Amino acid sequence: MNTIHPTTIPALNKELGEQVSGYINTLTKPPGSLGRLEELAIQLAEMKNNPFPKVSPAGVLVFAADHGIAAEGVSAFPQEVTEQMVMNFLNGGAAINVFSRQIGAALKVVDIGVAGEIEHEALIVDKVRNGTRNFFEEDAMTYDEAVEAIAVGRRQAEKLIEEGIESIILGEMGIANTTSSSALLAVLTGKPVKDLVGYGTGITNERLQHKIEIINQSIENRKADAADPIDILRKLGGLEIAGMTGAMLFAAERRVPIILDGFISTVAALIAVRMAPVCAEYMIVGHQSVEPGHLTAVEALEKKPLVNLGLRLGEGSGAAVAFSIIESACRMVSEMATFESAGISK
Amino acid sequence: MNTIHPTTIPALNKELGEQVSGYINTLTKPPGSLGRLEELAIQLAEMKNNPFPKVSPAGVLVFAADHGIAAEGVSAFPQEVTEQMVMNFLNGGAAINVFSRQIGAALKVVDIGVAGEIEHEALIVDKVRNGTRNFFEEDAMTYDEAVEAIAVGRRQAEKLIEEGIESIILGEMGIANTTSSSALLAVLTGKPVKDLVGYGTGITNERLQHKIEIINQSIENRKADAADPIDILRKLGGLEIAGMTGAMLFAAERRVPIILDGFISTVAALIAVRMAPVCAEYMIVGHQSVEPGHLTAVEALEKKPLVNLGLRLGEGSGAAVAFSIIESACRMVSEMATFESAGISK
Repeated sequence: MNTIHPTTIPALNKELGEQVSGYINTLTKPPGSLGRLEELAIQLAEMKNNPFPKVSPAGVLVFAADHGIAAEGVSAFPQEVTEQMVMNFLNGGAAINVFSRQIGAALKVVDIGVAGEIEHEALIVDKVRNGTRNFFEEDAMTYDEAVEAIAVGRRQAEKLIEEGIESIILGEMGIANTTSSSALLAVLTGKPVKDLVGYGTGITNERLQHKIEIINQSIENRKADAADPIDILRKLGGLEIAGMTGAMLFAAERRVPIILDGFISTVAALIAVRMAPVCAEYMIVGHQSVEPGHLTAVEALEKKPLVNLGLRLGEGSGAAVAFSIIESACRMVSEMATFESAGISK
Repeated sequence: MNTIHPTTIPALNKELGEQVSGYINTLTKPPGSLGRLEELAIQLAEMKNNPFPKVSPAGVLVFAADHGIAAEGVSAFPQEVTEQMVMNFLNGGAAINVFSRQIGAALKVVDIGVAGEIEHEALIVDKVRNGTRNFFEEDAMTYDEAVEAIAVGRRQAEKLIEEGIESIILGEMGIANTTSSSALLAVLTGKPVKDLVGYGTGITNERLQHKIEIINQSIENRKADAADPIDILRKLGGLEIAGMTGAMLFAAERRVPIILDGFISTVAALIAVRMAPVCAEYMIVGHQSVEPGHLTAVEALEKKPLVNLGLRLGEGSGAAVAFSIIESACRMVSEMATFESAGISK
């Protein structure tokens, strides 16, 4: 049986944060007047153990996988769209491609569990299995498969970090993955499914009711141990979600800031944090998604999203859109003059 | 006597907006899932009369001027800081320099009314007078001076637009200009001064009370005609505020999107809109400032800021930080594949 890689995430350097906070007050602006950017600059210094942290270039790692639960008719799109969207990523035409180019980020697409076989020279194939099982009827993954998917996430994050990225965005593609994420979040937080489930990619009201019923019945059927994040993940999760969790744990070990996207990304983050609470210290929530469960997941992480732009696309797109604000924070501390250097009366 | 240049701002192309909205629904994402970015892309198309609008390169035009009202002790900083901060802009060390570089924007600094004489090869000197008069005691400007300051704004915007910018950010520097802006906003909206006044660059509670009293008394002393934006502007305004107003009017005439910053920028916008209501159609509010009057000004414009990051610096800095979101909207519509081109089941 596989075992989970032990995680050794360093504590933040809070002492350095204090020093950076003092330094920011010497920059040519009224104290505190750059608000959230000042907080970000301090957090990033603490994460990276560097008073002048950088977040560029960012790396975007998109995990794609299929979900057996799609067979229950919970999504507005057929399962084949997972594979088609992966091709769209590889050909550069999806939202995450556009926003990754905008921020100068390296984008890697990993097939961790798409149902079909995709051939493309740019695709990273590191597949655990061809989609999860239908968790309405049986466990989505075996324990070994869940552990392996986390290991894939770690491995792919390591490769990208070795290439020199300074921050990481985790994206996903997987038809029916809001259904899986809602089920995971309900068990992780104990909140009622009906408060967490949304329209996903755009289902009807009738199908929303069906989605809620399927999730409730699946949770009852699977009897996951609410105190064991791996048990929850393997019974109700997705391979791409497990991959994201693994990548986040690895990034935190390497002091690489993690910029969270929307609902699915934040549920993966919550699982990582249940496995290793200090991992949360390395996370920044990029945006507030429209998907109702996202707010619950964000609150469970005790985070405050940077922007709220009514996005609900996934892929890592919202994190990439919010990225430049984090970049601004880094540039503020690295590039602004001090009152003394500029010769200004304080 | 000078006369105000008549403004001829074109109406938005709403028909094109409808077409772009339809096109956005063919892009490879669930309909509506890019929320605010989709709205922005439609608005920009309508403004620019172009289905694939661009906002880069942006131009940042910072107007600097002094305020006679500073003599009443309303600011945390002495008046000489206006001049010192202008030097900081010219030497590249201020927040607006950093964020302009980040977004690849051309930054121009205009001395429209600084009290002293600044020498620097990069400074544009287009000065109406050496600071406004103290409006606690007399009108800040004559009618001719206000009209001339608006003309300076128009002229400098024209120069920058001729250089090929695709959008404009108006910034300002002027010690005591939150006092002037609060007075303007109180007369423009009829709201009580105490609800509009904030801590500016960081004054004490005691000084805040003093600031409120000075503004209330000044409004009573000046008796500006609430129905006449030029009368309000000349009696209680600032030269840099008038310059921003003129630049906004000119930008709208040329269909150049205007990205508003915080409190002072938005009050200047409100004056432009009172002069020519259609000007509002060309404005996007970059961020929600901490300064209490900003929300009132934003509401008077019937706008919704893109981000809320606790900023209160001015200079155009918040607009520059928010800029990349608008850039994302443009790239979305220009660069994303359609369902048809990507061969995806809809």
